[in-house]
Amino acid sequence: MSFKPYEHKVQYYETDTMKIVHHSNYVRWMEEARVDLLEQMGLGYDVMEKSGVLSPVLSVHCEYKSMTRFPERVQITIKLLSYTGVRFSFAYEIRDKQTNTLRAEGITTHCFTDVNGNPLSIRRKYPDWDKIFRENCEKQ
Amino acid sequence: MSFKPYEHKVQYYETDTMKIVHHSNYVRWMEEARVDLLEQMGLGYDVMEKSGVLSPVLSVHCEYKSMTRFPERVQITIKLLSYTGVRFSFAYEIRDKQTNTLRAEGITTHCFTDVNGNPLSIRRKYPDWDKIFRENCEKQ
Amino acid sequence: MSFKPYEHKVQYYETDTMKIVHHSNYVRWMEEARVDLLEQMGLGYDVMEKSGVLSPVLSVHCEYKSMTRFPERVQITIKLLSYTGVRFSFAYEIRDKQTNTLRAEGITTHCFTDVNGNPLSIRRKYPDWDKIFRENCEKQ
Amino acid sequence: MSFKPYEHKVQYYETDTMKIVHHSNYVRWMEEARVDLLEQMGLGYDVMEKSGVLSPVLSVHCEYKSMTRFPERVQITIKLLSYTGVRFSFAYEIRDKQTNTLRAEGITTHCFTDVNGNPLSIRRKYPDWDKIFRENCEKQ
Repeated sequence: MSFKPYEHKVQYYETDTMKIVHHSNYVRWMEEARVDLLEQMGLGYDVMEKSGVLSPVLSVHCEYKSMTRFPERVQITIKLLSYTGVRFSFAYEIRDKQTNTLRAEGITTHCFTDVNGNPLSIRRKYPDWDKIFRENCEKQ
Repeated sequence: MSFKPYEHKVQYYETDTMKIVHHSNYVRWMEEARVDLLEQMGLGYDVMEKSGVLSPVLSVHCEYKSMTRFPERVQITIKLLSYTGVRFSFAYEIRDKQTNTLRAEGITTHCFTDVNGNPLSIRRKYPDWDKIFRENCEKQ
Repeated sequence: MSFKPYEHKVQYYETDTMKIVHHSNYVRWMEEARVDLLEQMGLGYDVMEKSGVLSPVLSVHCEYKSMTRFPERVQITIKLLSYTGVRFSFAYEIRDKQTNTLRAEGITTHCFTDVNGNPLSIRRKYPDWDKIFRENCEKQ
Repeated sequence: MSFKPYEHKVQYYETDTMKIVHHSNYVRWMEEARVDLLEQMGLGYDVMEKSGVLSPVLSVHCEYKSMTRFPERVQITIKLLSYTGVRFSFAYEIRDKQTNTLRAEGITTHCFTDVNGNPLSIRRKYPDWDKIFRENCEKQ
């Protein structure tokens, strides 16, 4: 299944003394793109909150390929890379919108927990969500 | 009553393209100094949380006097400027630690609310805290 | 003259323990709206950078009226409040996009400086910009 | 060679709606610890800036092990993991100061560049720094 890429306009407050976007902001942009993808999949924050489900980040990896400057725009392509029924991961490509130059590549892994932080099996607890994850996953 | 000033080490990620600290961070530093002052007054976050009390910010004012750069240290002097029994305000002076040059001056106003956001009268609900506020306030 | 309001989608990383947007982020949103307005006025960052002109923030004031939560959208109306030929100020209204509820009101003041931080008279140095400022200013 | 661990006091503005520190802030804490380590090694920001040398981040990896809350303190142990004469990497352990519970583990990789972004060979250009890196590196 194909999703609309996410677009972020670089903000002045995201830059640092090197006159480039500070590297920590790419981690925030990946979250923006992930929230957007989950909404497109029908699993927006409101849906999860109603079910009392949280989705903490288990790991973040980011490779910086070239520098982003204010006031550029970046386009983030994101896909559901893996899904085990409990854990899932996303892969990201961040490119300059105008030139398509690769800015960064990233991977994040996640699980679902209840409000007390106990891990939940999506496969067992949320068969509807499990179906959505399986249908949208690159590899299983 | 006299309190220990708060010290903040400027971080690289707080700078922007102008090679100075981004102005939004001074608002965060004022929060750091305020948290520290409330702890010194015996009203730390743990005390308030146990009582189910939140303390939202009602207004922020900041005048920028000179530029702060990485990796300087700033010293923040803070005092309880006013207290009405319901609302209270703090005044801040942010100075370079080494040269004592004034970097910024600020004022923030606050109230207490319950977890549902309803304003609380400190005077009526928390006489112990009311006493602390009255004793530490510049003017009443 | 009338400008298009600026829209900001609240991000998860902008929230805090109170489950509301942290108050320091409104200061960043005002910057986003200001950058957008200056672009609409024909004074985008690229224009200023080519001229070697910086525009530091001299003061920020923000009154918080109600709480903003993830994943709401806010609409920011901004106008050029005053202009003296050297200094200028903007006024902001931040409202919930869906309900139009007022979230916050703010004012920021600014000047122009050269790259060494020396203040510049717009009226004398940049008559074209001076004209734009005068035409778009509410009061003079 | 042994270095003093870096300590960070968790700030309120670093928390999010889950009442935990937002995962992007760990990336900023790793920068704080790295700046501190480089200062301890005699390669502080002032030394590098005088030489016109920048040190961009090439990659960041972070594994989140348990949740950090306001107002805890974390202690960050950092070591120089690898050094090739051109590239170098740091490994980080972030632990709760009071309980020593592991909060996160991370690795970042870096190089040195001139102000135009061209990579520099430390070994060839800065033999003094090369010596420091070699002496402090875990493996070569």
